[in-house]
Amino acid sequence: MNSRRYLSHVTKSFRTQGVMKLLRARIITLRRGLVEISVPIRSSLSQQDGFVHAGVVATLLDSAGGYAVLSLLLEGSRVLTVEFKINFTSPAVGEVVRAKGMVRKLGTRLGVCELEARTKSEGNWKLCAWGSQTFYCIRGVKANHVSDAETRGLEKLQMS
Amino acid sequence: MNSRRYLSHVTKSFRTQGVMKLLRARIITLRRGLVEISVPIRSSLSQQDGFVHAGVVATLLDSAGGYAVLSLLLEGSRVLTVEFKINFTSPAVGEVVRAKGMVRKLGTRLGVCELEARTKSEGNWKLCAWGSQTFYCIRGVKANHVSDAETRGLEKLQMS
Amino acid sequence: MNSRRYLSHVTKSFRTQGVMKLLRARIITLRRGLVEISVPIRSSLSQQDGFVHAGVVATLLDSAGGYAVLSLLLEGSRVLTVEFKINFTSPAVGEVVRAKGMVRKLGTRLGVCELEARTKSEGNWKLCAWGSQTFYCIRGVKANHVSDAETRGLEKLQMS
Amino acid sequence: MNSRRYLSHVTKSFRTQGVMKLLRARIITLRRGLVEISVPIRSSLSQQDGFVHAGVVATLLDSAGGYAVLSLLLEGSRVLTVEFKINFTSPAVGEVVRAKGMVRKLGTRLGVCELEARTKSEGNWKLCAWGSQTFYCIRGVKANHVSDAETRGLEKLQMS
Repeated sequence: MNSRRYLSHVTKSFRTQGVMKLLRARIITLRRGLVEISVPIRSSLSQQDGFVHAGVVATLLDSAGGYAVLSLLLEGSRVLTVEFKINFTSPAVGEVVRAKGMVRKLGTRLGVCELEARTKSEGNWKLCAWGSQTFYCIRGVKANHVSDAETRGLEKLQMS
Repeated sequence: MNSRRYLSHVTKSFRTQGVMKLLRARIITLRRGLVEISVPIRSSLSQQDGFVHAGVVATLLDSAGGYAVLSLLLEGSRVLTVEFKINFTSPAVGEVVRAKGMVRKLGTRLGVCELEARTKSEGNWKLCAWGSQTFYCIRGVKANHVSDAETRGLEKLQMS
Repeated sequence: MNSRRYLSHVTKSFRTQGVMKLLRARIITLRRGLVEISVPIRSSLSQQDGFVHAGVVATLLDSAGGYAVLSLLLEGSRVLTVEFKINFTSPAVGEVVRAKGMVRKLGTRLGVCELEARTKSEGNWKLCAWGSQTFYCIRGVKANHVSDAETRGLEKLQMS
Repeated sequence: MNSRRYLSHVTKSFRTQGVMKLLRARIITLRRGLVEISVPIRSSLSQQDGFVHAGVVATLLDSAGGYAVLSLLLEGSRVLTVEFKINFTSPAVGEVVRAKGMVRKLGTRLGVCELEARTKSEGNWKLCAWGSQTFYCIRGVKANHVSDAETRGLEKLQMS
């Protein structure tokens, strides 16, 4: 199966997020249940100490989590963030910030993602934020070129 | 006492946040322990459905909470976000989004803010997000034109 | 309308919670959208410093929130906790701990409660915990002696 | 080095928690930075549907997280829960519930644990809760039979 084709509804949706353009964000990893988004660090993303603002990190994490979920759903599905909770473990400084969303549990309507952001500074990656996101799915019915059996497999994903 | 003078370290710090410029945010309420930030809604802040991105709302809430704390501390103090948790209760649509941070508990080093965001649409305000923020204070010693007695009063603030 | 009758499904459900018996908890306030539960503090509820264990406070808060929601739903409905997040703002010491759940937003399936716990010590009440809870409703259809109009009113509750 | 000796301050503290006795909880895994607590499921821990109450699961997780931190600190140290946030991913049913706390980041005063609970039913383990905990450390100075070099190693633990 052509995975790019399977996941095209994710990248299509991502391109419609105005704020991702504003932040110059791009998807760098796109797998079923796991999405990573990367942004070059610059002063327009800063808080008062020059670090990347916690809210910018949260923005990237929220999209990464949402698209990690969407990557497991049929085309035409929608994902809404119910809530997220993020701990900020280190100042976000360096050249790049990378936000990762990973689906940990997907039920019929509700599920949970693990969120994790790192910054790269002089070649070293460091965790700057870690948290969880609850999402609500409105499931579409369009088959995005996946067999039914495969779809059932995807939708039974469990954190176990 | 001149309250604008007392709170000038808040507005000064706010102006150094690159991301607040990027979002065209401005402080519209600045009281001790309560700060409101407003942003005009436009497509560059959107997620895939045209609503304001949850992360943008979180960014405004995080700054509102942080400055609500800073408004209770002496000049030269610093406030760091330990974590925040936000529920998104309605789609953020309309002309304006307004984020409010209110200090609920301020200890020596740690404290908690309540966070609340509303959108205005055709004259009606609607809650779109609600949550809590844990912060860590590094307290400065510079007296920003407040008497010691007054300062002690402020710093004993309790949610009770 | 007889409000005790209207809310009898709440007290009936409360009595089936084994853990409420174990903690000697009882409902002391029961209104639509607001429930308070009280427990006498004793050493069998303690953590290592002799304070009431944070998890015991969370247990009371979770039930208070859940029953605050159930009080707004028709008989036969079910409420499930999706998640909760609680800040512990002071040690829970004294004679009594009282946990309050208040519905802040109730949608068709999802909603949010505010949670708040206080301890009483020598006549003074002090906040010891504050947080939020996301819940999921499975709505029943049995009318518990309420007119349809009234029910529609209750179910449109909004935090505004 | 005798690890049981090193970690004896953890088990000593655990035995002073009245609520752990009430729940019949015991530590089943005790390593530096990771603690697991187990409890036999019975009706006195139940909520209205007969599942283990979410607050009971939270109680076990909070202690597991706190002791995971304490296991990395010198004797005489104290650990306080600042907040926790827990998603409940499945009903807690079966014969046993097991709560795991793992330190993900330990700073000088603040840190974060990952929390995870599973139930065992007819030989199968299933995730029932997952979350995060922020803690505050008051560090002791007593050396619990560990060399200084080793201690520095432990205390530099990073989630990376």
